[in-house]
Amino acid sequence: MENDCIFCKIIEKKIPSDMIYEDKDTLAFLDINPVNQGHTLVIPKKHYKNILDIPSKEFLKVMETVRKITPAIKEAVNAGGINIGISNEKIAAQAVFHLHIHIMPRFENDGLKMFPSKKYKEGEAKQIANKIRFKII
Amino acid sequence: MENDCIFCKIIEKKIPSDMIYEDKDTLAFLDINPVNQGHTLVIPKKHYKNILDIPSKEFLKVMETVRKITPAIKEAVNAGGINIGISNEKIAAQAVFHLHIHIMPRFENDGLKMFPSKKYKEGEAKQIANKIRFKII
Repeated sequence: MENDCIFCKIIEKKIPSDMIYEDKDTLAFLDINPVNQGHTLVIPKKHYKNILDIPSKEFLKVMETVRKITPAIKEAVNAGGINIGISNEKIAAQAVFHLHIHIMPRFENDGLKMFPSKKYKEGEAKQIANKIRFKII
Repeated sequence: MENDCIFCKIIEKKIPSDMIYEDKDTLAFLDINPVNQGHTLVIPKKHYKNILDIPSKEFLKVMETVRKITPAIKEAVNAGGINIGISNEKIAAQAVFHLHIHIMPRFENDGLKMFPSKKYKEGEAKQIANKIRFKII
């Protein structure tokens, strides 16, 4: 547990939340600033900053909970689809530095926009793919 | 394999891709319409539509690959952060109906915007949390 972490305090029930699901290793609760009704956060009970520092085994426990509760969220709020998102580091819009997975219900004409896409220049994709493959441990 | 699925054809090497990683169950390659350099897609080799129909065990194999290659992508393109995203159903901006996880490198002032958030009315969050908990199988 981290002293100044709001999600650690939610886990310890020192701060209330609208709880969705809890097991030994993970917790799910409603985001208080939802993009839409039913927007849920899933977190590990152990404090990790984000996907860059959580061990694989712990990360998979969190994703197992995401997989388990996503259909329930979709059905409960009668959503047409679901976006799942993880923000890692401040530059990627991470605001609370305890890993959390967003489960975001989507509705017809809800006005939410995905990221705009670009195009690679000739040969650029091959070069970048090589760079990445070289870094995989 | 699905006959008309572009990602199944990438898996079968009938369509070329800038490959990042491959193992027995998963494949990772560069998105041809990247939000930023190094934008990678991770897919299961077996065809599933999205998170709503993939069995948990298969989903976790995909997420294990995501966890494994994300730090490599960040380092290779010198990104400041990473957004991970999964679009499930057309209404959530899913365009190819073979489950794929987006790994999106982020950079200072890249101009990408996250979803805008809202507020729940008094008592509304509690009511929705109840509905969702009731639906969890």
